[in-house]
Amino acid sequence: MEQHDVVEVIHAKRDGGRLSDSQIDWVIDAYTRGGVADEQMAALAMAILLNGMDRAEIARWTGAMIASGERMDFSSLSRPTADKHSTGGVGDKITLPLAPLVAACGVAVPQLSGRGLGHTGGTLDKLEAVAGWRATLSNDEMMRQLEDVGAVICAAGDGLAPADKKLYALRDVTGTVEAIPLIASSIMSKKIAEGTGSLVLDVKVGSGAFMKNIDDARELAATMVALGQDAGVNTVALVTDMATPLGLTAGNGVEVAESVEVLAGGGPADVVELTVALAREMLAGAGRDDVDPADVLASGKAMDVWRAMIRAQDGDPDAPMPTPKETHVVAAPSSGVLTRLDALSVGVASWRLGAGRARKEDPVQAAAGITWHARPGDSVVEGAPLFTLQTDAPERFARALESLEGGYDIAPAGTPFEAAPLVIDRLS
Amino acid sequence: MEQHDVVEVIHAKRDGGRLSDSQIDWVIDAYTRGGVADEQMAALAMAILLNGMDRAEIARWTGAMIASGERMDFSSLSRPTADKHSTGGVGDKITLPLAPLVAACGVAVPQLSGRGLGHTGGTLDKLEAVAGWRATLSNDEMMRQLEDVGAVICAAGDGLAPADKKLYALRDVTGTVEAIPLIASSIMSKKIAEGTGSLVLDVKVGSGAFMKNIDDARELAATMVALGQDAGVNTVALVTDMATPLGLTAGNGVEVAESVEVLAGGGPADVVELTVALAREMLAGAGRDDVDPADVLASGKAMDVWRAMIRAQDGDPDAPMPTPKETHVVAAPSSGVLTRLDALSVGVASWRLGAGRARKEDPVQAAAGITWHARPGDSVVEGAPLFTLQTDAPERFARALESLEGGYDIAPAGTPFEAAPLVIDRLS
Repeated sequence: MEQHDVVEVIHAKRDGGRLSDSQIDWVIDAYTRGGVADEQMAALAMAILLNGMDRAEIARWTGAMIASGERMDFSSLSRPTADKHSTGGVGDKITLPLAPLVAACGVAVPQLSGRGLGHTGGTLDKLEAVAGWRATLSNDEMMRQLEDVGAVICAAGDGLAPADKKLYALRDVTGTVEAIPLIASSIMSKKIAEGTGSLVLDVKVGSGAFMKNIDDARELAATMVALGQDAGVNTVALVTDMATPLGLTAGNGVEVAESVEVLAGGGPADVVELTVALAREMLAGAGRDDVDPADVLASGKAMDVWRAMIRAQDGDPDAPMPTPKETHVVAAPSSGVLTRLDALSVGVASWRLGAGRARKEDPVQAAAGITWHARPGDSVVEGAPLFTLQTDAPERFARALESLEGGYDIAPAGTPFEAAPLVIDRLS
Repeated sequence: MEQHDVVEVIHAKRDGGRLSDSQIDWVIDAYTRGGVADEQMAALAMAILLNGMDRAEIARWTGAMIASGERMDFSSLSRPTADKHSTGGVGDKITLPLAPLVAACGVAVPQLSGRGLGHTGGTLDKLEAVAGWRATLSNDEMMRQLEDVGAVICAAGDGLAPADKKLYALRDVTGTVEAIPLIASSIMSKKIAEGTGSLVLDVKVGSGAFMKNIDDARELAATMVALGQDAGVNTVALVTDMATPLGLTAGNGVEVAESVEVLAGGGPADVVELTVALAREMLAGAGRDDVDPADVLASGKAMDVWRAMIRAQDGDPDAPMPTPKETHVVAAPSSGVLTRLDALSVGVASWRLGAGRARKEDPVQAAAGITWHARPGDSVVEGAPLFTLQTDAPERFARALESLEGGYDIAPAGTPFEAAPLVIDRLS
């Protein structure tokens, strides 16, 4: 590999130029090995955030991160594979019903997931509310479960894109998270290294999402779709609403319970809608558009896969969700129509109740979370419960309640209300 | 002191906002104490480089760096004080004749100097070519010498602006040196903390300088003059040419010898011109514009102060300069008029001969350097010496000669030549 001077690489991007393939390969490799220091990569990340990277640079950067570690290979499986990635939102439990649903339709789902940081929840944190369930599998266990059950949700191993792991931790503490080239390459390096045959991206937009405006969300979606296609992964992105939280719950155990309701044929309409929409995309990407996931969901087969998937990872699908030490009910202050429920307010409240973490080494509470008893468009009655907050640490209620202040609007009964579309755009 | 979240501080500057006084005070203090990590400050420095700081932010940043350490106080001296700072150039030995000249005019000169890094020489490196001379003085020794001799050139103690020391080392390895707010605050925090009553800045512009174009040089000069005035230091800046190296020598011992020639009433005209011009500004700043430094230079009194200053720091003013192990002469390839001599080419050649260092812990050679036997406008004769290179490490000649290639132009005899002005602008 050609050697470079790190200060010259930083200068190139700082001064608005593009990085050469050789500079990108070298800087990612040297950073992974410790030859480029954290402070040097932090300066480069800030220069990338402010000056951008073109499509070829982002593709090379992603490729260099993939090359920093191992690649998985699912080609020996008897079924095609499809995976989904969400950029993160509030109440976004979709992976939980989606993975077993797609597996029940005949497509294997190798879902390598993460833990939550900040106000967006983490899929693994949610599943750990299930008694006995373990997030860590060996590669062999994962392959066997994909063949036998068809769906795996587990922690990504340390071997996939270690450069991304190191860089993500650095960006988190240096104010350089919000760079579209770095977000796109971080997500896609892991997904491409994971070896899925097709991929559906759920790019969230709105107050509770990482991307606050539609233009940024579309740019991120387009960048990731291009990266996937360039790497030979059949990739589609849906841009979906995250101004309002998904479903009726945010937290850990509460979101598992809601997901099980969906698998049982019930659950909130928006969670069902998005689960089915994403399942259709995954099936189409894997060449199985002959199956209608709505029918399969209604048949109960997805629930069977869910139970098998939980059992395969030592979880008890019949165990009740953990009970919180304390609950606190917020009554509706007036009667009328709920016209707005802000995803960020709800997400921060859930985080402050103990469902999320501030630092990656912090624990989370399985029983912490929040349930809202109405969605925008629903009627509310003064004095009836509007939110139920739960936590094992009642001193957390005060700050969670602060976050909910101003986070919703109730209009007089009869005020016209038009729901915003859940799926805003599709890029392929 | 109000506490802040470092990521929020980085975000504010990253997103093009201004930092509050409280954020600046906190981040500088926390960085000095280790509560803000190098990678966080590197990201902030890159954001400052790319998004800038306004005058009030730069002033507060400078003030916070001053507050990170001790301040000196020369008010007990019987004479007013004046100091000079050069942004660095090639052959820039001006401090050596200037400090004793101004002292001989009745104004005390507390000149805290640095060592060279890269192709620009360092005043302390040059003076260390004088047998026995020591750069490090206690504060008491410095005060006594200022009272007795009137001039001190010594190393800045670790106590002045420790935040700047740490930040400068970080910027050097993270590609964030070339930020005018950070350059200005770095220089001025040390000069204001040093406690000089008046200050003259020599802002160099041209190939051999840090600032390559006049607009950047003027902006840096104006920023520093404003900082000085805001802090109550009578501050003036001259913007001077560094497209051509100063005098006829670059290196260590060779520049000391040239400086002594100037003090003896001889020496190259440009070195004399700039020394006298800067002396006039320093004297005016200290309220002594009744004295003409050109007369004092001619009187020999400045040489007396030089000898006393060298002796006070254990140096022998009569010791010959160290002799290099090897010299190499470059003959003029044609006869005619030297129309261009590039400061950067000469500076890099001197550096490569061993007069400068690549890393701050490297040693320098006292005898290494380069002498040119003609200045732009002078006649040259084919085959006569044009450059004399000297070093203790003859393997260094080849790369030094490479640097000189293309670094000068000889035009046919009689070609009209107009010298560029040495002092380009004055800001006060």
